[in-house]
Amino acid sequence: MEGLKKFPPRPTGAGEMFQLFRDGVPRTRAGLVTETGQSRSTIAARIDALVSLGLLAPAGESTSTGGRPPSNFAFDPTARVVLGIDLGATHARLAVTDLAATVLAETSAPLAITDGPDPVLAWVAETSEKLVATAGRRVNEVVGLGLGLPGPVDHTRGRPVNPPIMPGWDDVDVPGRLHTYLPVPVLVDNDVNIMTLGEHRTTFPTEQDLLFVKVATGIGAGIVMDGLLRRGAQGAAGDIGHIAVPGADAVPCRCGNTGCLEALAGGHAIAARLRDAGTEAATAADVVALVRAGDVLAGQAVRQAGRDIGAVLASSVSLLNPARIVVGGVLAEAGEHLIAGIREVIYQRSLPLATQHLRITTSHTGGQAGVIGAAAMVTDQILAASAVEALIAERSEAS
Amino acid sequence: MEGLKKFPPRPTGAGEMFQLFRDGVPRTRAGLVTETGQSRSTIAARIDALVSLGLLAPAGESTSTGGRPPSNFAFDPTARVVLGIDLGATHARLAVTDLAATVLAETSAPLAITDGPDPVLAWVAETSEKLVATAGRRVNEVVGLGLGLPGPVDHTRGRPVNPPIMPGWDDVDVPGRLHTYLPVPVLVDNDVNIMTLGEHRTTFPTEQDLLFVKVATGIGAGIVMDGLLRRGAQGAAGDIGHIAVPGADAVPCRCGNTGCLEALAGGHAIAARLRDAGTEAATAADVVALVRAGDVLAGQAVRQAGRDIGAVLASSVSLLNPARIVVGGVLAEAGEHLIAGIREVIYQRSLPLATQHLRITTSHTGGQAGVIGAAAMVTDQILAASAVEALIAERSEAS
Repeated sequence: MEGLKKFPPRPTGAGEMFQLFRDGVPRTRAGLVTETGQSRSTIAARIDALVSLGLLAPAGESTSTGGRPPSNFAFDPTARVVLGIDLGATHARLAVTDLAATVLAETSAPLAITDGPDPVLAWVAETSEKLVATAGRRVNEVVGLGLGLPGPVDHTRGRPVNPPIMPGWDDVDVPGRLHTYLPVPVLVDNDVNIMTLGEHRTTFPTEQDLLFVKVATGIGAGIVMDGLLRRGAQGAAGDIGHIAVPGADAVPCRCGNTGCLEALAGGHAIAARLRDAGTEAATAADVVALVRAGDVLAGQAVRQAGRDIGAVLASSVSLLNPARIVVGGVLAEAGEHLIAGIREVIYQRSLPLATQHLRITTSHTGGQAGVIGAAAMVTDQILAASAVEALIAERSEAS
Repeated sequence: MEGLKKFPPRPTGAGEMFQLFRDGVPRTRAGLVTETGQSRSTIAARIDALVSLGLLAPAGESTSTGGRPPSNFAFDPTARVVLGIDLGATHARLAVTDLAATVLAETSAPLAITDGPDPVLAWVAETSEKLVATAGRRVNEVVGLGLGLPGPVDHTRGRPVNPPIMPGWDDVDVPGRLHTYLPVPVLVDNDVNIMTLGEHRTTFPTEQDLLFVKVATGIGAGIVMDGLLRRGAQGAAGDIGHIAVPGADAVPCRCGNTGCLEALAGGHAIAARLRDAGTEAATAADVVALVRAGDVLAGQAVRQAGRDIGAVLASSVSLLNPARIVVGGVLAEAGEHLIAGIREVIYQRSLPLATQHLRITTSHTGGQAGVIGAAAMVTDQILAASAVEALIAERSEAS
């Protein structure tokens, strides 16, 4: 039955007791006996196990009605650290965060993903180790690494799947290769999904239904429904770059079809259109610079790209009924033109029921969403009830 | 944090203990002490509470290593019954099911939704009571009623929202009105969502990512992602009937826009096209009858409708990456024409990563999916941990 899936097989273990602490509120042993209905000895053993893992720490004394005051325990997010890494086509960004995905140290550098997995992952490992030191932590305090890649990724296996702009990366065992440098759990996802997780975590944590759209050289989306990122059957959900734009010309696309969103509204497509009109522009960043410099033609081209994106998002709004659309990626930095075009078509084409409460806004995370999302992807997994349970079992077998 | 949301505030109550039993496996008190880590007295009290609610029943004796054999307890799905009701534009279908959504008795009758909420809901209540008697059960054994309506519904409030083909129903408090006849929890959703729940429950219970498409007079979809129905922010997710069809003519639609899917491929649209060509056809059912009788023109028209639906579903496949699409509704009964047209365009337009494992099939539930889904919607809610917890609290206050 559906309801059953929500609960792990042993719903009352230490791992689940730990979930109670993730709200940040300190608790006493006696309070936990009342809260969970478990025996005093069970609670005491579980507190001990979580303290020895470093997940709980004593947090002072509680008030008492008499006798010795009971000890408080609380989740200590600084106990361990996590690496959040966002690799783009030509650029890398890395962060060390605590277990609440709060950034402790951050760095970025140019990096060509086309150099292939060996040099790129070696660089990632080396730079990560340096950054951990910069954050004043030791490498053995790192409990996991989250990585975003600019292409389709089979999230469950951590492998790129026919990524168009990543030669040499197809089906590479990214977690396995990183393990040779850093023996910690490695989670891999595509860059738009980690940006979506980061936007959701940092800016809209209470939004249950959110659609994030990255507009840069490529165009992609991330889907949050009922509060969690939804990846689809092969992890390819949100891949909107090659959806046919309703009402648009049959412009040929590199994918072999015509009229794809990316072929009309991606950074390269806009730059090409500007070049046809005699303006020098090669990349999405060039387009943004032109718009910011007040180039009228560039402004018009970005607004038309917004309309084309809006035509695809109008269908997405009818299908998903999100409460909010967040537009990010480098082209979102080109002022109001992009979002104005998007809004124009969505409100014209989507059904009133789906748009009456819909909010469409620009990302304000300044590019940090990716590394935060990558780190949050890891903390959510390693702090989950079943993972904590497994860790405790491992410890008790070893001792 | 995200992980936190999966757990109710009191994760170790009787309600959650009951979830263990929903797998159908009998358990002993001693086994539950081991399984949950809770004390023997806590377990005994919770078993008593669940037995007195009728949710658990003694299920014989377990094998023992000596002494008196311990008693088994098991979930008794026949303890109570649920009503599942599917109202269409011109037709009603009702079922009495047990708590596992297994149909015990069923009936259907012509019913005009346009008669308005008062006569329709009175008829529903009266017919429901008769059907409960037919199933050999008493009305006080009914613990909930699930209802599907042919229009947009705010599921959380149980009210239709500007339903286009249901005059007089806008914002009507359907649960409140039904309460005057049957004092049980009433859940309301749109007909496509309950059909989706029913398809998922009966035919594809292990499918995590499924898209159900109803093709009849109207066209709508239901979205299952990560194993559960996703309704979107206002419950309007899946409303694909007015998405613009890429590459199609700008046919005017009753919604005020042009090129909408329903205006091209809905039952009325196909019938109108056949009439233009001199063939008599008024409804979707007429179209199906013509195709079954071998009318070539009708077959071609249905196949073209399939292509138009496929163009919209191709975008949905790129966005959602489902593992399976199930095509239902009366037009799905017109043989292979519809699904052939759908497949043709989806495989041509969607990305290989999203289609390589995609299966597209026709519904085989023979129209029963709606009532089963409506009943399952109710059982999932009333058997959830928090609901069982509340029921026990209510009892203990009353006693």
